[in-house]
Amino acid sequence: MTPLEKLEQLGIELHEPPKPVGAYVPAVRTGNIVYTAGQLPIIFGSDGKLSAKGKVPSIVSLEDAKTAARVCVINALSAAATQVDSFDSIVRIIRLNVFVNCDSDFTDQALVANGASELLGEIFGLDNSHTRCAVGVASLPLDAPVELDIIAEIK
Amino acid sequence: MTPLEKLEQLGIELHEPPKPVGAYVPAVRTGNIVYTAGQLPIIFGSDGKLSAKGKVPSIVSLEDAKTAARVCVINALSAAATQVDSFDSIVRIIRLNVFVNCDSDFTDQALVANGASELLGEIFGLDNSHTRCAVGVASLPLDAPVELDIIAEIK
Amino acid sequence: MTPLEKLEQLGIELHEPPKPVGAYVPAVRTGNIVYTAGQLPIIFGSDGKLSAKGKVPSIVSLEDAKTAARVCVINALSAAATQVDSFDSIVRIIRLNVFVNCDSDFTDQALVANGASELLGEIFGLDNSHTRCAVGVASLPLDAPVELDIIAEIK
Repeated sequence: MTPLEKLEQLGIELHEPPKPVGAYVPAVRTGNIVYTAGQLPIIFGSDGKLSAKGKVPSIVSLEDAKTAARVCVINALSAAATQVDSFDSIVRIIRLNVFVNCDSDFTDQALVANGASELLGEIFGLDNSHTRCAVGVASLPLDAPVELDIIAEIK
Repeated sequence: MTPLEKLEQLGIELHEPPKPVGAYVPAVRTGNIVYTAGQLPIIFGSDGKLSAKGKVPSIVSLEDAKTAARVCVINALSAAATQVDSFDSIVRIIRLNVFVNCDSDFTDQALVANGASELLGEIFGLDNSHTRCAVGVASLPLDAPVELDIIAEIK
Repeated sequence: MTPLEKLEQLGIELHEPPKPVGAYVPAVRTGNIVYTAGQLPIIFGSDGKLSAKGKVPSIVSLEDAKTAARVCVINALSAAATQVDSFDSIVRIIRLNVFVNCDSDFTDQALVANGASELLGEIFGLDNSHTRCAVGVASLPLDAPVELDIIAEIK
């Protein structure tokens, strides 16, 4: 299956990427590489509502943070899609950077980030996986529990 | 106006980039891409003095942090300029990464980062904007309120 | 000396990169660029043991954090090496990103990161140095004191 067919099978619809929360753009293409801006778990069509707000795990549970990471990835793919004619021309994700807004004794950033990585694996194939960096940060814009960005390779 | 003409109009002079605070270099070019090192708001000609020091907003005000982000961008552009014959061969900024040294309940990283993004918009044009990632971190080198780096595309 | 000869002179053996702690891969090559995943100071052959655990400097000393950064770099180079036929085809390191798990009043991230940068300087030459971004974060996966990733240029 192609990435687009896989999206359809998963019932995921890409959409207009969330409006940037500052003076920048959702995605830029240079050559065959697309960079997306850092994405928050803004729910499409909700006028800016986040799927969860606060630190992991004292305010936002691990499970909700993982879901938020999944929402961020859909937003990131929606942003990347603005730079290509067809979503299927995205060959793979080169890089995923994940920032988790967490308590300073939280050490399961990898589990949160898996909410993003596992979805990417389903879409682009497990044998075509990405590199990842996941860290815990002091705070994030809008008190989001997670922010992430991707670098994608285009055919 | 070209980026260089715009710099002149804004009264901004590029300069020798700040001496790295470790065993690295201010900028590297690979193909038509320039990466700069993370830049602190070191004031040119001040022998290493920062425009502000401490966490946002308890020690450094939002306004001063925004100014610091602007100083960082001038340092980043100065670093990028060392890799090109003419500043005008910088076509655009692909990426801006902003790290804000802040209290753990601060959620306006986007406003701080706008100090950088708005200046880039003035220089390279609002219709030629960059992607951005802005996060809040526990601490930064030299207790700087902000650190940022850019990835630039060269003609 | 070539990078490989330099590694031998330093008594450093590359190895199978540590198993990713999530649904991603250690390294990806796109064109002549290799991205590595974020690397923790996992000791080779130890079944996942870190060279140190905890925050810098209250739990992990500056010296031990610097050593951990060095271990991370060896893991990162091992990951990058999986993407090339010969290690000597790595022309240089373009970028080093360093995240230090530290107390919120720690401001010597640059000294920790030098544990990585100095080793890269020995291997690839001081006149062929990398750009770097070093920040302090609230926490890291597995309570590692440092996480880092590299972007390398291939011949």
